[in-house]
Amino acid sequence: MDTKLQELKNRLYEINDLNMAGGVLGWDQATYMPVGGAPARGRQMATLGRIAHEKLVSPEMGQLLEDLKPLEDSLPYDSDDASLIRVARRTYERQTQVPSDRLAAFFQHSAESYQAWTEARPKNDFKSVEPLLEKTLDFSRELANYFPGYEHVADPLIDFSDFGMKASSVRQVFADLRAQLVPMVKAITEQAPADDSCLRRTYPKKQQIAFGEKIIRAYGYDFNRGRQDETHHPFMTKFSLGDVRITTRFNENDLGDGLFSTLHESGHAMYELGISQDFEGSPLANGTSAGVHESQSRMWENIVGRSRPFWEHYYPQLQATFPGTLDDVSLDTFYRAINKVQRSLIRTDSDEVTYNLHVMIRFELELQLLEGTLAIKDLPEAWHAAYEENLGLRAPDDRDGVLQDVHWYGGLIGGAFQGYTLGNIISGQFYATALKAHPEIPAEVGQGKFDTLHTWLRENIYKHGSKYTAPELIERVTGSSLTIEPYIAYLKAKYGELYQL
Amino acid sequence: MDTKLQELKNRLYEINDLNMAGGVLGWDQATYMPVGGAPARGRQMATLGRIAHEKLVSPEMGQLLEDLKPLEDSLPYDSDDASLIRVARRTYERQTQVPSDRLAAFFQHSAESYQAWTEARPKNDFKSVEPLLEKTLDFSRELANYFPGYEHVADPLIDFSDFGMKASSVRQVFADLRAQLVPMVKAITEQAPADDSCLRRTYPKKQQIAFGEKIIRAYGYDFNRGRQDETHHPFMTKFSLGDVRITTRFNENDLGDGLFSTLHESGHAMYELGISQDFEGSPLANGTSAGVHESQSRMWENIVGRSRPFWEHYYPQLQATFPGTLDDVSLDTFYRAINKVQRSLIRTDSDEVTYNLHVMIRFELELQLLEGTLAIKDLPEAWHAAYEENLGLRAPDDRDGVLQDVHWYGGLIGGAFQGYTLGNIISGQFYATALKAHPEIPAEVGQGKFDTLHTWLRENIYKHGSKYTAPELIERVTGSSLTIEPYIAYLKAKYGELYQL
Repeated sequence: MDTKLQELKNRLYEINDLNMAGGVLGWDQATYMPVGGAPARGRQMATLGRIAHEKLVSPEMGQLLEDLKPLEDSLPYDSDDASLIRVARRTYERQTQVPSDRLAAFFQHSAESYQAWTEARPKNDFKSVEPLLEKTLDFSRELANYFPGYEHVADPLIDFSDFGMKASSVRQVFADLRAQLVPMVKAITEQAPADDSCLRRTYPKKQQIAFGEKIIRAYGYDFNRGRQDETHHPFMTKFSLGDVRITTRFNENDLGDGLFSTLHESGHAMYELGISQDFEGSPLANGTSAGVHESQSRMWENIVGRSRPFWEHYYPQLQATFPGTLDDVSLDTFYRAINKVQRSLIRTDSDEVTYNLHVMIRFELELQLLEGTLAIKDLPEAWHAAYEENLGLRAPDDRDGVLQDVHWYGGLIGGAFQGYTLGNIISGQFYATALKAHPEIPAEVGQGKFDTLHTWLRENIYKHGSKYTAPELIERVTGSSLTIEPYIAYLKAKYGELYQL
Repeated sequence: MDTKLQELKNRLYEINDLNMAGGVLGWDQATYMPVGGAPARGRQMATLGRIAHEKLVSPEMGQLLEDLKPLEDSLPYDSDDASLIRVARRTYERQTQVPSDRLAAFFQHSAESYQAWTEARPKNDFKSVEPLLEKTLDFSRELANYFPGYEHVADPLIDFSDFGMKASSVRQVFADLRAQLVPMVKAITEQAPADDSCLRRTYPKKQQIAFGEKIIRAYGYDFNRGRQDETHHPFMTKFSLGDVRITTRFNENDLGDGLFSTLHESGHAMYELGISQDFEGSPLANGTSAGVHESQSRMWENIVGRSRPFWEHYYPQLQATFPGTLDDVSLDTFYRAINKVQRSLIRTDSDEVTYNLHVMIRFELELQLLEGTLAIKDLPEAWHAAYEENLGLRAPDDRDGVLQDVHWYGGLIGGAFQGYTLGNIISGQFYATALKAHPEIPAEVGQGKFDTLHTWLRENIYKHGSKYTAPELIERVTGSSLTIEPYIAYLKAKYGELYQL
């Protein structure tokens, strides 16, 4: 049995090597590749992906997993080996239940659809992508149907990124959250808006980079096992547990853009870097879900990085980094600026309070599309209506409406968005639990010290990698299932103070 | 037959994708990878290499090549398809004639030996690597013996990098060259040495980079299909015919180091970039031999980049790039400085005239080791004796003697060095042929124009990739076999003028 387990591991390591190599090619493509490299790079990445896929869905792999079932059953659920076999089986089943030719057809369709979207959005031309989106919806339903026995057709799609979550429960949680957020947004936006013009002065890029890197170094992001580069869209990428990189973009006239991206991506990266080295190369060496991942990026970006104690420590250093630029701006004004709440049209630019409304709109539209209660042709108007209802705004066109986000145009309809808001909710739950164990954390943040929090996260969350599903992990860490209470309490405390609610 | 040919191509493209991906991983390792990435990166590169090897030596590949023999024979020798099959078969045979386990054992030994060398050289400790080098010699003979029918045991090893060249003919060519070089070096070094102190002033890196890149852009190195980064050792690497990169190192107190490295590597890169796009992804899309490759790097570095017309154009620009630094240095002084000839101990620091003596010493020692007329234990003294005989110098220790170059410690003994001098010889032959067709080239170089030369090289050499072996290509381009005459004539003209010989 030990030999078979070792063989499974060796096969998984090989597949991992191929996937990580593909990651390096993708990172290079986004950072340093000259334009002439593009056509071959696409083929190279496709080849690596195809070979990794072939190796994963091979009959030998299926046989090994079957042979190892008795070993898995004989071991404790949370032993490393049982977890490895379990998670490997989940990955195997996910890839074998969809016929390879259908998967290939879907990827080809996605690439076309993505390309069409890049052209349609600037032209505000939803009509040109409408037939492609119809096909995406068909594919999404088809893929879901390869995983029968679901309660809601979106459930298998949600499983792809947030394994163990269900449309029904997410819908309920989101409804509860919405009921809290809508009056909060109303109360805040009835007041005079915060003045955030100080963020739009001139901030030279070099100093922005240095300042952001100083903070994430203090967070505990290890530059011996990572680095930061510039890309068009910020992201985190991992090539091994010893090499987890982040990318950021900088705007010299928008301090918040680069800075909070850096903090956000560092949270994703610290999660991956904190996974137990014992899992290196195996499917356990990954964050467990989109939601839990986002809980870490949002915690370090928002709960820590937009908190008052944090800026009590860092604001004088920020002022010194950009001499003269912020002399006339008080800490209080700056703190209000980086936490300005406003109704807006663009998800990625939105604040902590309204952000979740943007996500919920998309999640609900996805479900309705999958259910067949909404047709693709009616989607643009449904988008506008949802924005009017939830945010009291209507985009002047589809460019900032239904064409805003890439997700549906480069992937599935279903499962793409819930993780963002689940992440916020989970960040509140985890942070409250950390505070219960270590009430000194905010005071330490006020001294630029993050060890206690980072160590707690590593010991309770990061090190487990994918061993536990998100629901299991939340239960294990907080002693409760997913609940919005801590997150709502956090928002109420923070924004209640800011806006004297 | 067309189907089989297409299948061969598809298999070769897949193998190429894996190898190119490995190249990206290697480039990243040398440029931007954080230290923590090293252990996994080694494994990832090994995995890609192993899978590529498995796919190449598969029985299906052997069968395809056999099935395609009639097609190959029915096509003209220099047709693209016949050449593809021929070169693919050569690669296939090279990898299948050595048992995989012996190849793996050799690579493991090489890695150990390389590691030991990195520690032994600073400690001047030849004894510690002596047993490893013994084993390397055994491996080298063993590998050669998998290719029976050779005239000299080094021939199969020379074939690995300079296919079609033989120990006997290289030995003869080198003896002829040596007979010309030794008196030339003697005559030059009897004179007062050139003053090259101007090269060791302070040259800020940023300006060095900009100046070097301006030149190679003028050469025709296309930054849309390449880029330059900094590494510990300069190299050229290719990820596709649309992405050929170079790396350089810079020393703020040595202008020549970075500048001529840049010109050298750009020559390698332009060769690869000039290969016919029809060959993309196939084994034809490579420079044909180490020697022909080196002919291009040395041509652009030395024949063009250290010529008087070149600096008549660029010297004023160099002076302007480093304001004040070279005001007191005349063009003539500068030109003499960058072409200073001196007896020295280190191959990589040596000048155009003495460089070949360094190479010949190593080539002859390799042959003697393989023949068994020299024992590893006697190699350090043999090295010193050869330096005394050829260059009139004796290194104070083995660090700058037999431990100087990595080649024997990280690869085979045999075939590692001849390409450097073959490259110089071939550069002379090709350049003379180009001049015959376009006598205006030196005048154009004097105006910073390189189109005529670059186009001639692309049309006559670059575009063919590996279609012709080096001997075939030389014959085809120059109408003659390998000969030292043009190279000697070039050296005599240039250094005769410089040193009034």
